[in-house]
Amino acid sequence: MKKLINNPANFVRECLEGMAIAHSDLIKVNLDPNFVYRADAPVKNKVAIISGGGSGHEPMHAGFVGMGMLDAACPGEVFTSPTPDQMLAAAKAVDGGAGILYIVKNYSGDVMNFEMSTELARSEGMRVLNILIDDDVAVKDSLYTQGRRGVGTTVLAEKICGAAAEQGYNLQQIAGLCRRVNLNGRSMGMALTSCTVPSKGTPTFELGDRDMEMGIGIHGEPGRERMSLKSADEIAEMLALSIIEDAGYQRTVREWDEEKGEWVEVELIDPGFAKGDRVLAFVNSMGGTPVSELYIIYRKLAEICQKHGLQIARNLIGAYITSLEMQGCSITLLKLDDEMIKFWDAPVKTPSLRWGI
Amino acid sequence: MKKLINNPANFVRECLEGMAIAHSDLIKVNLDPNFVYRADAPVKNKVAIISGGGSGHEPMHAGFVGMGMLDAACPGEVFTSPTPDQMLAAAKAVDGGAGILYIVKNYSGDVMNFEMSTELARSEGMRVLNILIDDDVAVKDSLYTQGRRGVGTTVLAEKICGAAAEQGYNLQQIAGLCRRVNLNGRSMGMALTSCTVPSKGTPTFELGDRDMEMGIGIHGEPGRERMSLKSADEIAEMLALSIIEDAGYQRTVREWDEEKGEWVEVELIDPGFAKGDRVLAFVNSMGGTPVSELYIIYRKLAEICQKHGLQIARNLIGAYITSLEMQGCSITLLKLDDEMIKFWDAPVKTPSLRWGI
Repeated sequence: MKKLINNPANFVRECLEGMAIAHSDLIKVNLDPNFVYRADAPVKNKVAIISGGGSGHEPMHAGFVGMGMLDAACPGEVFTSPTPDQMLAAAKAVDGGAGILYIVKNYSGDVMNFEMSTELARSEGMRVLNILIDDDVAVKDSLYTQGRRGVGTTVLAEKICGAAAEQGYNLQQIAGLCRRVNLNGRSMGMALTSCTVPSKGTPTFELGDRDMEMGIGIHGEPGRERMSLKSADEIAEMLALSIIEDAGYQRTVREWDEEKGEWVEVELIDPGFAKGDRVLAFVNSMGGTPVSELYIIYRKLAEICQKHGLQIARNLIGAYITSLEMQGCSITLLKLDDEMIKFWDAPVKTPSLRWGI
Repeated sequence: MKKLINNPANFVRECLEGMAIAHSDLIKVNLDPNFVYRADAPVKNKVAIISGGGSGHEPMHAGFVGMGMLDAACPGEVFTSPTPDQMLAAAKAVDGGAGILYIVKNYSGDVMNFEMSTELARSEGMRVLNILIDDDVAVKDSLYTQGRRGVGTTVLAEKICGAAAEQGYNLQQIAGLCRRVNLNGRSMGMALTSCTVPSKGTPTFELGDRDMEMGIGIHGEPGRERMSLKSADEIAEMLALSIIEDAGYQRTVREWDEEKGEWVEVELIDPGFAKGDRVLAFVNSMGGTPVSELYIIYRKLAEICQKHGLQIARNLIGAYITSLEMQGCSITLLKLDDEMIKFWDAPVKTPSLRWGI
């Protein structure tokens, strides 16, 4: 295992300690239970946005804590869901009295623990809603999910909802916006190489020297198909077409109904893409792929979008939701509207996403 | 070779084409000869800052073109110096009438070609000065250099000099500032894995499963010592102490003397670090190492700086000067003064470094 680490058991803690020292102007870190929160939390009368999930996807989520994005992030151990007590402690630290939105990637452990934390928080008088992100078109069900996995759209939802919270949206409005971002966003990823969980010490999966995995999950879980290495253009095309040609995905998600005071089933249907749509094109490194290669993918993606009448109105290119040191990339396309563009462009100041300030 | 590429011969061109499409609000790309320049160039009455060097170190340099940093970047083929005609064409495109500073990393080919371009530009009536960056403490002479190699301090010099140009410094002032940044900055890097030049298709060097290379160059050229894998803390300590304990390095560089109208030899001596110094601590990924591991390095670096009485006043953590997909990191420490801090904090808006705007 070739990594810059000390004792693998301390990987998450030491990474958080490093972040705390590096970014003390932006964030604070609480250890035991682990959570990262805005240095100026709680922000009075602002809806607080909290996300979290297994570590190993850095900079997501802790790198997105700060003005205009997350109020707190709850990192679990590598590729392991955080626990309800982490989320509850984070909620208490950042609750500004206007309610809390949990943005939850669709993995069974995350979903269960965020729901449990929601109930704990509510029993202590906090107001909490959960919105699920399930944007990965690669597979319907997977090792860790019922339904689609939550991937790249999470980053975009955190930015857009964070800006909306900053500009005074109330909890219901932000939950609605987050649901719409999830519905409008779709992703697919691929891997050139495997990755190694520090505490395990051996690769999560084996991949031959001439093979790649299409539709990989961000925990190295299997995707659609293992195949021989393809060119960047072919890879970009496979990923982009899987996304563009996907539409009408129907699923039922559990959300808390504040009026009824109970969990309800909400039916969601992807609207799909249509000619003339404006999109945000997000080309993401899985961690070990340098930005030079991402631009080669973006070059082809832009051509494909143009051919399908999709206008790339905004983009994001870099390593934002990773799988440790895995080489590979993912593409996310988010159908934009004016409201989303306004919030995307709004100022943000976090360790790993910063503009306008 | 596992990369997201098409024909290896088109790697640089396609990367530049992708950048041009992705960042048309910030930059323009000229092909044949290849250079990247500010979308709003030339900026009248502002000193223009130009850098360049072999490709494969992305985002350096093309990712740093934009308001508050570079006016142009000249990318050569991978790990290959750009040619004088690229630099001359870039100079013509961005010359705003206040002179041009070439920031040149100390590699024989870069030095020779930037000097040649300087003479060509001068013969066409442009005013050009060259400042050399030679901050790598790992080795005195190397495969590609006489004297020390130019590495991490280049990124910091480009940011600081770019801001000074934006705020109206004249050419002599900016050249002086750049020389001081180089004198005050020192770096050292290490590799966990090798990297593969696309056109070659095989790793630049071989490194055993349990080995690492200390003092690696950014082209995979040998460093100080090959040794068995060490912990992150040990690696951070070896890199940091090599930098902190280095002082008094003496060298002679060639600079153009505008008054005399000729090249002169300038004697430079590193001032070293002293208790109470403020520093910028830059922890850089060689390309394939994710940011999580950089924070573990930063954690130890902060402890070492504190022990040596160095106050980290600013930091930069991420992949900014890379060696393709190589895993590993480098540390740069730059002794700061008020002027450098002011220019470091100034707004910047480039594809890969952005704040304050």
